[in-house]
Amino acid sequence: MTTTTQTAAQRFAEFASGLRAEKLPQEVTETACLHVLDTLGCGLAASALAEASYVVSGAEEGAGTGPATGIGVVHGLPAAEAAFVNGVLCHALDFDDTHAESVVHVSAAVTPAALAAGEAAGADGATVLAAVVAGNEVSTRVGAAAGGVFHARGLHPSGVCGVFGATAAAARARGLDAAATAHALGIAGSMASGLLEFLADGADTKRLHPGWAAQAGITAARLAAHGATGPATVFEGRRGFYATYLAGVEVDLAPGLAGLGSEWNTPQIAYKPYPACHYTHAPVDALAKVLRENPIRPDEVARIVAYTDKTGVDLVLEPAADKVRPRTPYDAKFSLPYCLASLLVRGSVEVASFTADAITDEAVLALTPRVGYETREYSPRPDAFGGGVRVETADGRTFEAELRYQRGSTENPLTEDDVRGKYRANAGLALRADDVRGLEDAVTTLGQQSGLGFLSAVRG
Amino acid sequence: MTTTTQTAAQRFAEFASGLRAEKLPQEVTETACLHVLDTLGCGLAASALAEASYVVSGAEEGAGTGPATGIGVVHGLPAAEAAFVNGVLCHALDFDDTHAESVVHVSAAVTPAALAAGEAAGADGATVLAAVVAGNEVSTRVGAAAGGVFHARGLHPSGVCGVFGATAAAARARGLDAAATAHALGIAGSMASGLLEFLADGADTKRLHPGWAAQAGITAARLAAHGATGPATVFEGRRGFYATYLAGVEVDLAPGLAGLGSEWNTPQIAYKPYPACHYTHAPVDALAKVLRENPIRPDEVARIVAYTDKTGVDLVLEPAADKVRPRTPYDAKFSLPYCLASLLVRGSVEVASFTADAITDEAVLALTPRVGYETREYSPRPDAFGGGVRVETADGRTFEAELRYQRGSTENPLTEDDVRGKYRANAGLALRADDVRGLEDAVTTLGQQSGLGFLSAVRG
Repeated sequence: MTTTTQTAAQRFAEFASGLRAEKLPQEVTETACLHVLDTLGCGLAASALAEASYVVSGAEEGAGTGPATGIGVVHGLPAAEAAFVNGVLCHALDFDDTHAESVVHVSAAVTPAALAAGEAAGADGATVLAAVVAGNEVSTRVGAAAGGVFHARGLHPSGVCGVFGATAAAARARGLDAAATAHALGIAGSMASGLLEFLADGADTKRLHPGWAAQAGITAARLAAHGATGPATVFEGRRGFYATYLAGVEVDLAPGLAGLGSEWNTPQIAYKPYPACHYTHAPVDALAKVLRENPIRPDEVARIVAYTDKTGVDLVLEPAADKVRPRTPYDAKFSLPYCLASLLVRGSVEVASFTADAITDEAVLALTPRVGYETREYSPRPDAFGGGVRVETADGRTFEAELRYQRGSTENPLTEDDVRGKYRANAGLALRADDVRGLEDAVTTLGQQSGLGFLSAVRG
Repeated sequence: MTTTTQTAAQRFAEFASGLRAEKLPQEVTETACLHVLDTLGCGLAASALAEASYVVSGAEEGAGTGPATGIGVVHGLPAAEAAFVNGVLCHALDFDDTHAESVVHVSAAVTPAALAAGEAAGADGATVLAAVVAGNEVSTRVGAAAGGVFHARGLHPSGVCGVFGATAAAARARGLDAAATAHALGIAGSMASGLLEFLADGADTKRLHPGWAAQAGITAARLAAHGATGPATVFEGRRGFYATYLAGVEVDLAPGLAGLGSEWNTPQIAYKPYPACHYTHAPVDALAKVLRENPIRPDEVARIVAYTDKTGVDLVLEPAADKVRPRTPYDAKFSLPYCLASLLVRGSVEVASFTADAITDEAVLALTPRVGYETREYSPRPDAFGGGVRVETADGRTFEAELRYQRGSTENPLTEDDVRGKYRANAGLALRADDVRGLEDAVTTLGQQSGLGFLSAVRG
């Protein structure tokens, strides 16, 4: 039982090792499964688009073989390497989920670690589901104790915090007891890494971080299972994780620890509805609302006025010449004119909207010059991205819609149908229809699966 | 060629990718080979003593199979996993080399990365030799630019700096060009890790750090070889390695970069002559000098007075009751009475002197109570551990010797024969005599070897 002399790592370990899927609240179970589904969909889409293909060819060259599944890798991989491949692919499109308070891309590290460790251990679905939840709850708490501060220090929380969730997940999936799990978390502290320096030149390291965290989590759990020890005071020690990486900052893990087992962060993890900059989301959804309620043909549109705040203007509307005709798929994700025109012409803003071919579609590009903007004030909260549109037709009609909080935020969550739809569009880029459906059925009933054999569908 | 617009990573990369063994000064070549030999000896001794055996059993469970050699692992391993096993084992006894200015255990990360990447690439000995030197020169410069500061911040430089040397070594061993090597170093920045929190409770993470750095180096080089990019400004960027891990500290890589290719750190890396606390070394060598010059039998010794400074007293002489009868091999490494008695009785202080059996040898323990001490002042330099002894015999004779700098320091280096002798004692714990000799012959002529097949001897 909990005692006051436990360290944070020991408390996390006791929680993770004792977690049982059948005792979880239904909302936690259901959202945990949906996040696994969403995460795999993101990875499958990345694989289909050959994003981060270096992890796949790299694994084929040097990872060896083993019992675990890497997306797009035909043969089985050792668990740690499978977790790496999947962690990178699931984050590669930046379409995967985020926990707002911790600013951690939670699932991209936790889900691959839980699945690969589970495959290697021959675990059943209930065990892996418990592992996913354990990982989600640990990553979000480690990050939320210092939300926003990691970024200020140059560290990517999806990497440096994600490694603890991945470790908890891997430890639970392979059935480590509390003592070994605590050691694994201590070891993980010596594997926590991920610099934000990619911001200087757009290097690939951002997408590598969740993968490396997942690989480290598998390795830390493996070492602890074989008797290696980690420092019990990895979180609170004077040379521990926070003291070293966030020197001078007061970090309080106590509230997060107190809620372990009774308060759940898993349902608060936010899905991303569009594989584009967050500032495009509210205007896109506002336009979707207008179009749902008013059947308007593209050729009827005289002008679309987007509403966003000043940062949004700088990110997705100016300089106008670049936004009207994006040069690369990445540019297109930061072009609100392109996203709105795609929705108007194609009825969708999805991964397939941002391929090299798609962004040269003249039917879409013909409409981008009709997008203008007005600057408005929205919520100053960092994870709220309000916005809207006014549509003016050639025959003089005007339609308007606005979202104070973008869809996918806590105030405006995606529905289960939304998440399944997103998954189907993503997975459909890589898999045959029956595999898309089979994987969806298995993952959304993960707790009832006798094993993880269904993952073979993603090997491509 | 060098231009002023190169980043540090690009400069390191140009140096590493262009390094040719045949153009190295002879002293560099010779010492590089001896350091590889010394490092493998340390790893073999650890393997023989089943130290850190969790990395071996862990690899057997989960690493998969591949072309590279892990000490004590019968089957071949993927390169990254072999580098991990060897990096941990070579540092496990804390008997491996150190570069004083950077306080980096250089070879424990660099040598395993160079060897494993070389094996996987089918590289010849000259290529691997160049890789070792490239790694040594990079690790020492990355560390020396902020020598001592990493420790103050709670970071273990053998991990956080070692990853860059390991990456340079792996990149050179597999023949990456300068551009790809720079990307690999950029990726390595997002894998730099290693907390000192193990100091709180003696956790195993210390010995894991060089192994994880070596594994990361192999992985970073593999990713870059397959097209992944890392930030060019990983060292000097405002969210880069130094700015993030050593915020507020002025770090100057320029002197180290300027000397690349003309000044060599490899010959400055210091061997450790005894697998015991540095504070025991000078008194042990002083006693060795007395015994060489004066054949004194153990039963003739009435008293040995050790000379050391106050820190030395606290570490290896007090509390006296614990030092006279060490409870564990680790305790014995911090007992100067035990070390001196071992030398007196057995003529040696080596790995075999610190086994669980050896430390209960009553012939040695009978002498430990005769060791006293006097406190003296020695050089305040952090890597100089002066000390000495006065031996008083029962028949009234007195002998004295003192070392201002311990053997193995830059001022008092080990000879080639010393290093070979150390290797033979270490390797002899694990290998048959002909394998000890065969490995020694191959490693000391590494540049002439057509491949690394000779490493199969260490698989055990």
